[in-house]
Amino acid sequence: MSVTSCGRLIGVGVGPGDPELITLKAVRALGQADVVAYFAKLGNGSHARAIAHAHFRIGAEELPLGYPVTTEMPKDEAPYRTAITGFYEAAAQAVAAHLDAGRTVAVLSEGDPLFYGSYMHLHVRLAHRYPTEVIAGVTGMSGCWSQAGTPIAQGDDVLCVLPGTLPEEELARRLTGADAAVIMKVGRNLPKIRRALAVAGRLERALYVERGTMSGSLCERLATRGDGPAPYFAIVLVPGWETR
Amino acid sequence: MSVTSCGRLIGVGVGPGDPELITLKAVRALGQADVVAYFAKLGNGSHARAIAHAHFRIGAEELPLGYPVTTEMPKDEAPYRTAITGFYEAAAQAVAAHLDAGRTVAVLSEGDPLFYGSYMHLHVRLAHRYPTEVIAGVTGMSGCWSQAGTPIAQGDDVLCVLPGTLPEEELARRLTGADAAVIMKVGRNLPKIRRALAVAGRLERALYVERGTMSGSLCERLATRGDGPAPYFAIVLVPGWETR
Repeated sequence: MSVTSCGRLIGVGVGPGDPELITLKAVRALGQADVVAYFAKLGNGSHARAIAHAHFRIGAEELPLGYPVTTEMPKDEAPYRTAITGFYEAAAQAVAAHLDAGRTVAVLSEGDPLFYGSYMHLHVRLAHRYPTEVIAGVTGMSGCWSQAGTPIAQGDDVLCVLPGTLPEEELARRLTGADAAVIMKVGRNLPKIRRALAVAGRLERALYVERGTMSGSLCERLATRGDGPAPYFAIVLVPGWETR
Repeated sequence: MSVTSCGRLIGVGVGPGDPELITLKAVRALGQADVVAYFAKLGNGSHARAIAHAHFRIGAEELPLGYPVTTEMPKDEAPYRTAITGFYEAAAQAVAAHLDAGRTVAVLSEGDPLFYGSYMHLHVRLAHRYPTEVIAGVTGMSGCWSQAGTPIAQGDDVLCVLPGTLPEEELARRLTGADAAVIMKVGRNLPKIRRALAVAGRLERALYVERGTMSGSLCERLATRGDGPAPYFAIVLVPGWETR
């Protein structure tokens, strides 16, 4: 009777968008993986796959993990949570089936796998059961401030990473207390973010960055940008240091 | 009469320590640079150079920028500030001389160049005068939480990056208000950091990481680690998400 030893799970950070901002370690891991898994929104393809597919091993099996449609569901109510938890459970099972068969599975993650990434939902379900490695990646925020050429924090600066989904008063309070800040999940939170920055006295220095390090990228002062539609993954930067 | 066009300044992030965690873009830039500059402490060599030197162009000129000895100087007093400002001015002039001669100068930066990096002191002095590009890198903190295999932040988590040099009360207050935190500049601040974490009720989840992604790396629960000597570049992680 032959025993198949189980495979290895690798969380692979593919960086912020520019395909050259992937690491040598990620490239090596992708060149060796039997299976490459990635999250994708229905009909949208996977951004992480677009960044990294040139490095897949020839013959590697692809495992797209398609998010369920939850557009109409309020995010803090049970039906949404049930749908999304069920999805992550099923995704973990699909990955585990490959691991059980002895295959190495690389899970792509835009930016860094353990920094606000979907990979984490697989990691917490699988890392205690299978040999697991995480390959750090360049985060989206690093890509944005590098593209803007803006030093973000120095010396004893306190840097806060804030989701734009926070209530306006909390955003304003936290922006007042931070030397430097990064606001993520901008999208339709932009007008609220702008008001919070104004209350905190930080609007003048704030930068709006869209598609950082990618083609069609955009970087401008938030103060002079309109409140027109902004993508969810746009970022607002409040540089520290030079204010001192 | 021939006119030499000026060279290009490139801030190159070389990642957190593991030489494989450098990006393809950094490797390409180093393979093309005429001059590679790096900051170094006297007698210590340059860590960034050790990570990246395999990628230097053959024949590239090296420009070590040696920090002045300031060990005995209090950091918030004029003599220290004069010495360190004079050093950065001289370093910028040394780089500018190469740029004026038409050479491409890559300045190495551990982690990400614009995230608490010394490169920023050259950037603010030179980027408005010369064509400049910044190549984002994997930060030291990403390297540490990846090595620890610890999801740091997810969803609507607020993440705070705090210097361990802050006063104990401020550290405790900020740790209480953050879902996730990274404390840098640990060194002899470790006992204070531990007390602040205990006050904030976060000591149980805190991880201590030393030499993340490098040989001889160490990761343990801070609660069970003694207060023995810790290197300045050790990091304390307080993971978010799972606390919810």
